[in-house]
Amino acid sequence: MNKPLILVTNDDGIDAPGIRNLIKAMREIGEVVVVAPDTAQSGKSHSITINVPLRYKNGIHEYNYIEYSCNGTPVDCVKLAVKIILDRKPDILVSGINHGSNASINVIYSGTMAAAIEGTFEGIPSVGFSLDDFSADADFSMASKVAKIITLKVLEKGLPDDVCLNVNIPAIADDDIKGIKICRQAKGIWEESFETRTDPHHRPYYWLTGEFKSLDNGIDTDVHAMNQGYVAIVPVHCDLTAYSSMQQISDWDLTFNKE
Amino acid sequence: MNKPLILVTNDDGIDAPGIRNLIKAMREIGEVVVVAPDTAQSGKSHSITINVPLRYKNGIHEYNYIEYSCNGTPVDCVKLAVKIILDRKPDILVSGINHGSNASINVIYSGTMAAAIEGTFEGIPSVGFSLDDFSADADFSMASKVAKIITLKVLEKGLPDDVCLNVNIPAIADDDIKGIKICRQAKGIWEESFETRTDPHHRPYYWLTGEFKSLDNGIDTDVHAMNQGYVAIVPVHCDLTAYSSMQQISDWDLTFNKE
Repeated sequence: MNKPLILVTNDDGIDAPGIRNLIKAMREIGEVVVVAPDTAQSGKSHSITINVPLRYKNGIHEYNYIEYSCNGTPVDCVKLAVKIILDRKPDILVSGINHGSNASINVIYSGTMAAAIEGTFEGIPSVGFSLDDFSADADFSMASKVAKIITLKVLEKGLPDDVCLNVNIPAIADDDIKGIKICRQAKGIWEESFETRTDPHHRPYYWLTGEFKSLDNGIDTDVHAMNQGYVAIVPVHCDLTAYSSMQQISDWDLTFNKE
Repeated sequence: MNKPLILVTNDDGIDAPGIRNLIKAMREIGEVVVVAPDTAQSGKSHSITINVPLRYKNGIHEYNYIEYSCNGTPVDCVKLAVKIILDRKPDILVSGINHGSNASINVIYSGTMAAAIEGTFEGIPSVGFSLDDFSADADFSMASKVAKIITLKVLEKGLPDDVCLNVNIPAIADDDIKGIKICRQAKGIWEESFETRTDPHHRPYYWLTGEFKSLDNGIDTDVHAMNQGYVAIVPVHCDLTAYSSMQQISDWDLTFNKE
């Protein structure tokens, strides 16, 4: 049997330890092609590059293995991979391992998860992996094991149409990991502030800073599962319709006079 | 009674005809503050700017009216407006009027709608408006009327927590507009291709191009409503959990050996 073709991408850039660990784990189970941003693209969400042309270049090239880096966003990388670089559709797309959690509302800002969502648009079973540790020297060993287990399971079982997985791994000692839970996305927000500074020309500028705050006491959420020592999997789709609000808004009188 | 405070932003940039028309309509019903990108930010989705500091500058300034342009994304504009520029929370945020439809899957890529979603994170009733016409000389007169009607209605009724509105206006003659419908987001995709070119140094580069394709025959969708001559309103939230897939994935055996 042919090995599965695994497309690997991320948003921290092709040199980030997270993707290097993910590549290593994926090469143990399939034929891997990497198409990842040449620079860090955190917080790029589902951005696409319209006003600048895209380029890619070959990186590491070995027997049955090749890496490409691209000047675009994670979503651009997926599009380029599927439309230009690969000659057949990958059996799975994996994105990450992100440096930092993409649980709760982070899924909206995340380039890691945007790449996975874009993979589903292309009909590819897709999974985003994130470790709840922003540090450059984070230990990705347990996260890599988890990525391998879940990737093998998705290759075996497939995924529902238009659904990808958002997998978040707590940054705790291996022995403290209790297992894997299927969860819903916790309600939460970023409590932002800006750090105001003054440049040498006496003009103000602003650095975005902030802290995530959970607004959800549910015990079925990704945030809760991680706090309890579980790997959290949220099945993610891109239908943003707030179905439960449709009736309420349908009751508004919205007749209008065109004059 | 005080006039409502209306925060106006967009993703096509502060000089785009769409936002100029929206500002004009909003100034007829409230006190307006504009905080919008200084350049076009289409396709920026929910991007935030992390690696570059933000700046803003004053533009037009009249009695009870002021405009600011910002070097960031639409989401950055909302954050800067709320945290730095405004001294009270706006009564409503309106984003647009976008040059081009944000119906169906476009909501995922749209900076216009990302600004509206970010508004809901700040607890502000928020609405994104888009006209189904990409041309620079599109006629925004009917879209402006629609924006005014819906804004007044939202100011009167409020919106459910964490829900904003995605309003898409067909680009048809005023007389052909049949009314306003509450819809769900149509399933659809962008069928992309890249136009490959070669630069003067004989290196290839790629321009992203594509066409939207509806994959949904439902008569309750935004795309269908617009095709029938209706303004489409989709209530939008940011819970991406694919609830209907949770059970299926929960049935997987995901026990794992930590060794």
